[in-house]
Amino acid sequence: MSSRLFHFAGGAAGRFVVESMSTVCGAPLPLVERVEITAGGERSLFPGAAWVLKGMTSHERYVTRREKAELIGKQAALGRESATRTAIIPIRKTAAWWSLTQEERREIFEEQSRHIRIGLKSLPAVARRLHHCRDLGEPAEFDFITLFDYVPENAGLFEDLVAELRATPEWAYVEREIDLRLCYDPAVSS
Amino acid sequence: MSSRLFHFAGGAAGRFVVESMSTVCGAPLPLVERVEITAGGERSLFPGAAWVLKGMTSHERYVTRREKAELIGKQAALGRESATRTAIIPIRKTAAWWSLTQEERREIFEEQSRHIRIGLKSLPAVARRLHHCRDLGEPAEFDFITLFDYVPENAGLFEDLVAELRATPEWAYVEREIDLRLCYDPAVSS
Repeated sequence: MSSRLFHFAGGAAGRFVVESMSTVCGAPLPLVERVEITAGGERSLFPGAAWVLKGMTSHERYVTRREKAELIGKQAALGRESATRTAIIPIRKTAAWWSLTQEERREIFEEQSRHIRIGLKSLPAVARRLHHCRDLGEPAEFDFITLFDYVPENAGLFEDLVAELRATPEWAYVEREIDLRLCYDPAVSS
Repeated sequence: MSSRLFHFAGGAAGRFVVESMSTVCGAPLPLVERVEITAGGERSLFPGAAWVLKGMTSHERYVTRREKAELIGKQAALGRESATRTAIIPIRKTAAWWSLTQEERREIFEEQSRHIRIGLKSLPAVARRLHHCRDLGEPAEFDFITLFDYVPENAGLFEDLVAELRATPEWAYVEREIDLRLCYDPAVSS
């Protein structure tokens, strides 16, 4: 059985070299040199880490059947050999967002912000996996962690994706966001 | 800050005396004599427990703004002094349910099954708190744990609620369900 749970550990060790780490909004995370990402696992696997985040892949919350089919038809899996550029973006949304009903969130997410439409433009160049952490125990520092990878030539496409999303009405509900850019180091075995 | 995380520990100790424990479908849970329910906490607080379940309260997934207002207007909080009858019902839904889109789940949940309508009929007599556990780590034995309490005179209303929900199309997607009926023991301090 494949794990739905993933750990993201920042510290001195890990297969991913941190090239930049910036606080888009809210409280920062301690700066680290490397990040390890594991399927499954637990906190105790990373005794020296400065921070350990975790998230679970889950069912889709907002897509319609048609959008889901379109996404499945276009998306690529993480881990393509040439996709050496990686980004991890943990975010937390405001209490106001979570007090909205599902249909109100969908209205802002897609009808106003075109989140799915914007995301589709970068497929399959940018591979993406969304991890949920809002209901993963306490303290819940973030609601979501999104992991991306792409080949260096598609960096511009990725920057456009991130910039477009941050300019949407949906992002007015983001109260904490950290942007980590990583480079996969094949010399470090997992 | 009040905790969104709750633990439910079954064993020889706890403030709730188990009056019955039945497996509606799927694998059973070990039979126990007592149950403790705590806000917050962690697994290690219950060293002798036969099982420990946990779940988190979260935002609503299916209600419309109008339904939410109606629920808030009618519902009662758990823990009323005379509400000595308690039930805990953990359930897990099928992979088929989770592969549906949000709008398909809502269609089955309310338009076909009248889950919210049925629930409203028992308000405020039956108090209820829903805990999510699908995205709370692994192994995820259950997707939800619902806790109910009511005065003994409203037992019939509660039985109607449970029976009506189990007869809905939504319940075809329930693959594991345990039904625990408890009685609060005021002689045991928390």
